Amino acid sequence: MIVADFSMIPMGSGTSASRYVKAIHELLKNSGVNFVPNPMSTSVEVNSFEELFQFIEAANQKLEDMGVQRIVTNIRIDRRMDKEISIDSKLKAVGR
Amino acid sequence: MIVADFSMIPMGSGTSASRYVKAIHELLKNSGVNFVPNPMSTSVEVNSFEELFQFIEAANQKLEDMGVQRIVTNIRIDRRMDKEISIDSKLKAVGR
Amino acid sequence: MIVADFSMIPMGSGTSASRYVKAIHELLKNSGVNFVPNPMSTSVEVNSFEELFQFIEAANQKLEDMGVQRIVTNIRIDRRMDKEISIDSKLKAVGR
Amino acid sequence: MIVADFSMIPMGSGTSASRYVKAIHELLKNSGVNFVPNPMSTSVEVNSFEELFQFIEAANQKLEDMGVQRIVTNIRIDRRMDKEISIDSKLKAVGR
Repeated sequence: MIVADFSMIPMGSGTSASRYVKAIHELLKNSGVNFVPNPMSTSVEVNSFEELFQFIEAANQKLEDMGVQRIVTNIRIDRRMDKEISIDSKLKAVGR
Repeated sequence: MIVADFSMIPMGSGTSASRYVKAIHELLKNSGVNFVPNPMSTSVEVNSFEELFQFIEAANQKLEDMGVQRIVTNIRIDRRMDKEISIDSKLKAVGR
Repeated sequence: MIVADFSMIPMGSGTSASRYVKAIHELLKNSGVNFVPNPMSTSVEVNSFEELFQFIEAANQKLEDMGVQRIVTNIRIDRRMDKEISIDSKLKAVGR
Repeated sequence: MIVADFSMIPMGSGTSASRYVKAIHELLKNSGVNFVPNPMSTSVEVNSFEELFQFIEAANQKLEDMGVQRIVTNIRIDRRMDKEISIDSKLKAVGR
């Protein structure tokens, strides 16, 4: 399992991004991907890079369909070969 | 108010980072800064850049005191001039 | 065209990462992707998300083959719908 | 020495950011900080966290003075205790 978080910043579309974030969360719900909204990003857990990247592309495409002309995406990816990880295991490891 | 998230990755100190993350959360608790642990990062809300950066330095120093020889810190900072933001307001805006 | 930069941080493999960065640059050379090494990251220009993500996966796999047990990847992606961009156009826009 | 890179994304100020990036580079030149413009970020080398953070705040302030209403800043910071690093040493280590 790969755990990642991402933020997508629309440029040229005003200072508020909440409608875009909500649309991306809707996409995640429909895709069945396990995710958690954070104050600065959205965390996801996926089985493969392919799954992660298909989603990132679909989310960019969604914002483009909503009229966004430039998107800056930032992704952090944690991949461990020495043990299984998940959103839950990572939160438990730090006592949440 | 400034909302930010950060991750600190120790290099050369094994594959597990949970003891370092816990030490940093302990620092945050003692400092009175409002924070939320996320799967891939920690979110904080601060009144100024100075408050944010003093904490980032203190956290790096803490890891150094624990023996870490190299630290890669990644920070995302959201600063709005058009409205007040907080960890809560950002989570509510996306429906959490 | 999509312009992106990425860093890959090996955990549990010592404090030096230069042999891993060189191996990734070798991969990039062999793949024909246009790239620039930066002090903190590597910039690439690609035609599609698919091209970017295949490379990110291949680079993670390369580090895994070299024995790395945990990899934290950080990616920034710039995608514009309003104009063509490239590594060169972005550098020229800021006067380099 | 600390080596870092940062990007600052103005929201609600159109899709082009080059005038803001140039203004920040002008600040860096005037401050005497050693920096390198990259396609996706600007790299700096500084003697302390304080120097880095004062600059980040000054750059945010500059964009605010130019009318930007929301700024998302992303910073990667490399701090080594085991050896001296600089922009040059990091580029040389990977063969540039």
